[in-house]
Amino acid sequence: MSDQQPTDTIRTADPPAEVPLGREVSAKSYTYDNERGWRRYRLLRPGRGMYHDIRRRLPYYWSDIADAFTYRTVASTIRMYFVNLLPAVAYTLDMYRRTGEFFGITEALFSSALAAMVFSILGVQPLTIVGITGLISLFNYTIYDIISLYDVSLYPSFMAWTGIWAAVFHWAVAIFNLCDYMRYVTDFSSESFGMYVGIIYMIKGVEELVYEFEQNGAAAGYLSCIIAILYFASIYSLEKLGQSTFATLFWVGFSHIPGQLKDANISKVPVTEAFRPTQPRGWLLAFWRLPVKWVFVALPFGFLLMLLFYYDHNVSSITAQARQFPLKKPGGFHWDFFLLGCTTFVAGILGLPMPNGLVPQAPVHTDSLTQYTTELKIIATAEGVGTEIRRPVVKATAVVEQRVSHFLMGLALIGTMTGPLLTVLHTMPSALFAGVFFVVGWGSIESNSIVHRLVFLMSEQRFIQRDEPLLRVRPRAIAFFIGLQAIGVAATVAISQTIAAIGFPVLIILLIPLRTHVMPRWFPLAELEVLDDFTCTNKQVLASLGGAPALPEHSKEEDWGLERRRSEQRFGVHRQRAGSLKR
Amino acid sequence: MSDQQPTDTIRTADPPAEVPLGREVSAKSYTYDNERGWRRYRLLRPGRGMYHDIRRRLPYYWSDIADAFTYRTVASTIRMYFVNLLPAVAYTLDMYRRTGEFFGITEALFSSALAAMVFSILGVQPLTIVGITGLISLFNYTIYDIISLYDVSLYPSFMAWTGIWAAVFHWAVAIFNLCDYMRYVTDFSSESFGMYVGIIYMIKGVEELVYEFEQNGAAAGYLSCIIAILYFASIYSLEKLGQSTFATLFWVGFSHIPGQLKDANISKVPVTEAFRPTQPRGWLLAFWRLPVKWVFVALPFGFLLMLLFYYDHNVSSITAQARQFPLKKPGGFHWDFFLLGCTTFVAGILGLPMPNGLVPQAPVHTDSLTQYTTELKIIATAEGVGTEIRRPVVKATAVVEQRVSHFLMGLALIGTMTGPLLTVLHTMPSALFAGVFFVVGWGSIESNSIVHRLVFLMSEQRFIQRDEPLLRVRPRAIAFFIGLQAIGVAATVAISQTIAAIGFPVLIILLIPLRTHVMPRWFPLAELEVLDDFTCTNKQVLASLGGAPALPEHSKEEDWGLERRRSEQRFGVHRQRAGSLKR
Repeated sequence: MSDQQPTDTIRTADPPAEVPLGREVSAKSYTYDNERGWRRYRLLRPGRGMYHDIRRRLPYYWSDIADAFTYRTVASTIRMYFVNLLPAVAYTLDMYRRTGEFFGITEALFSSALAAMVFSILGVQPLTIVGITGLISLFNYTIYDIISLYDVSLYPSFMAWTGIWAAVFHWAVAIFNLCDYMRYVTDFSSESFGMYVGIIYMIKGVEELVYEFEQNGAAAGYLSCIIAILYFASIYSLEKLGQSTFATLFWVGFSHIPGQLKDANISKVPVTEAFRPTQPRGWLLAFWRLPVKWVFVALPFGFLLMLLFYYDHNVSSITAQARQFPLKKPGGFHWDFFLLGCTTFVAGILGLPMPNGLVPQAPVHTDSLTQYTTELKIIATAEGVGTEIRRPVVKATAVVEQRVSHFLMGLALIGTMTGPLLTVLHTMPSALFAGVFFVVGWGSIESNSIVHRLVFLMSEQRFIQRDEPLLRVRPRAIAFFIGLQAIGVAATVAISQTIAAIGFPVLIILLIPLRTHVMPRWFPLAELEVLDDFTCTNKQVLASLGGAPALPEHSKEEDWGLERRRSEQRFGVHRQRAGSLKR
Repeated sequence: MSDQQPTDTIRTADPPAEVPLGREVSAKSYTYDNERGWRRYRLLRPGRGMYHDIRRRLPYYWSDIADAFTYRTVASTIRMYFVNLLPAVAYTLDMYRRTGEFFGITEALFSSALAAMVFSILGVQPLTIVGITGLISLFNYTIYDIISLYDVSLYPSFMAWTGIWAAVFHWAVAIFNLCDYMRYVTDFSSESFGMYVGIIYMIKGVEELVYEFEQNGAAAGYLSCIIAILYFASIYSLEKLGQSTFATLFWVGFSHIPGQLKDANISKVPVTEAFRPTQPRGWLLAFWRLPVKWVFVALPFGFLLMLLFYYDHNVSSITAQARQFPLKKPGGFHWDFFLLGCTTFVAGILGLPMPNGLVPQAPVHTDSLTQYTTELKIIATAEGVGTEIRRPVVKATAVVEQRVSHFLMGLALIGTMTGPLLTVLHTMPSALFAGVFFVVGWGSIESNSIVHRLVFLMSEQRFIQRDEPLLRVRPRAIAFFIGLQAIGVAATVAISQTIAAIGFPVLIILLIPLRTHVMPRWFPLAELEVLDDFTCTNKQVLASLGGAPALPEHSKEEDWGLERRRSEQRFGVHRQRAGSLKR
């Protein structure tokens, strides 16, 4: 893929080092590496990242609309509508139940639509789909659990203040160029995060089914299990063929077949009046009525929310613009994080769940816009043509980079908030969404490198291809590396089951310095280069983060990503499945 | 595999053509190819096949016991006990319900144990496991449906006479050397048969679940579906690891977990008093009381039963002694078919379901006795070591050929008929056996060459390895070939759903002359040689069938089996899964 390099326009954003850093060049190139004096400090140059983000991307704005006139945009809009909507409904069912029915389907749709409008029109990175995640659901109901220990009536305005504080922190991070540190994120933490998310979703799937037993009795419970299991199985098989929408339609229909199935009376998606909040309230929350003491209690919660989004949203932007996609247009993290602060603010005061970048779904969007060709690779063996080996190799040739599909998807979500389409949503059994949890969760777990390396360690060595980079690493070191990841995952999953759940972003963020500052003492550089890789490796994207990262061990960026490059060269790029994080 | 050839002792059974056919040689070599005059006619030389079968195998009898002193015999006994028992119980549940509870678990166990004793002690081919199949269940309840149109009280003695007549036909076939025609059976009919059996079992699995709804209500029905689906899924995954017994124990335990699961009150395997028939009757049926008219009505039914066993039992012996297993001891079809007549007779007059060779399970027995080694095959590519391809190739090096494991399995079945073990059996949920149907049925369908060729036709040609023999056949011819098989399967499945179900063996048998006499007119020989293969290809086995088959097109036997040989050379032998018929 590395020969799919920047066009001339972009190349100016990454000037050769020998060019004198005059005013004109530094205005285009965003980096601190060659600066002197106070100019080296990010904090002293507020707004520089945002300014460069816009300056870099603005020339492409018209082409973001003009490039969209292809059937691929329509196909992408339809695919993303379902890939966004179904998990959002699943997470909302969970949140609805566990926040005293404060956040409902209408709020979730409103929030998703708001985010889609803002990011498709104003975002620098319109490929990053923004919406409701399972983690914001976890975050919101944990706050509910905490608040209900004191006075549950404070919850709406407390959430508003959490959103307000979070927005303030977002703006600060964006203005003071702190997104730059995302370039130090490696697969060590992002794969751990993927595993964590996968496990949480599997748990939520089970909880959904348990609730069905409690609510509607044994027959409904068992039928729900069947629908969830078979929905999972059919999506899992059909994803390989790329036709999963039919499975959803099929299982919705299945749950309505008269007779035994209808009589089991399983629960459906709860909906309320169109365009009205789920609770009898106005849209704007009376956040000014919250006692001052509680306003300040909300401050650390807002900070934690910002931490979560800092990691989650930026990783989703990175994966949506991963190296495997031959992108030509530049990214911009600072500006988009500023916008995310705005949507968080609005969501907060309107009592919506806060939207952010969808980790498994964002790369699906780019995938749906990518033109792939499948080429034939013939490996002629020593014995000649009779025993040659033929293998399909998938190559990504181009991406329809535009902002129209994101915008249309947002319009479709607004359409879904109308009466007739809410009625359609109401026909869907909740059990199906337990299946959605399983699909998304299992996709994240199955594709995770922790799992792959565990399998590698258990494999018989002699059957492993000799050029497998992992063979250069001591098995003990592999076990130690994935062991550290497993401890991080286990700790995060464990904390998520308690009232301290809101602290989980701290644990995830802590994995980054553990990796950059502690682990180089435990692993030789040569082994780390095989075991780990920078999550952000696309040059267009790194331009917005201040250039390629330099780890303390000062290795060349080219020494990293051996496994990824070997696999791409041999088997082609990995196509994105709905549930899988990346790789 | 072909270098694993007969030992010296066996080689005499297959004398070179130039040796004069003296008295001594012809006594050992069983063939009609070089005979003159009346000696050429099988029918005129009664008992010749049986005589040769015994004469050929008797010298090995002591070694059949002595060779058994290895741990493999114990492992094989345990594996075969479960592989035999679980499907037998599944088929019996079906039969029990649909024959007015005449055939129960005790009858099935008795019949399986009887067969195991007879064939392990007296059989020429002790590798062929004999027991209850789903087809005898279909056969028995169809007769029940027919008889109940007249007078249901006639059923027991009518079944006895069916068994008696079937036994007479068995003996006639054995004595007049008619098993020889089995050598003309090709994959055309045996794969169709495998597909038919697979579909029938899937249907039976569904019927089992429907019955659960009717009997115990919605909660029990849905829970049964869950158990069946998850049992299937766990066996399917674990078979790849070779540890499926634990799955059975797990799901039996699961169904007894107190709370929701226990409360659903799903049905368990119905058992009666130890060693007593299910119905209040003596073991011997009063077959002499059947009106003479009905005795003769039973005659065609007996003939159809013989036809079924002729195909089913002999194919199971052939697959248990397939070419992929490096067997050294000779087979004997005539004698074993005579014995099968005896067990059919005894089963008939005692009111047991008639046992016969188990098509999917028999090769599992040989597999469990086979010593495999996994070798490393390195395909060095043109680019050298860095891109070499490593592949595990499984080779079968030896088989522990003995009759002790079969005998011990029979003893275990007798043990299961005692009170305490019947109680254990009674703890097993019926739903699990719906899962057993799915496992056995799907195994047969998935491994079927009809399916593989359909996939081949739908594949993109450029990714197919160039030495794939199917590439030498016109796609139209492949489609026509599997189309004929599909018609045969569809007709047989369709007839099985009606009261004419007992006629299904006729349809299966008709596929043999269709293949040998009609199809050579429709397909060029070169294409048939790729598309089809003789089911019986092991030289030790063919010795009992009068030597290698000669089709009307007079091609050399070496021109057949291209696909099998290419696949074995490249990927090693195919290991037998519990559900699959054969490649």
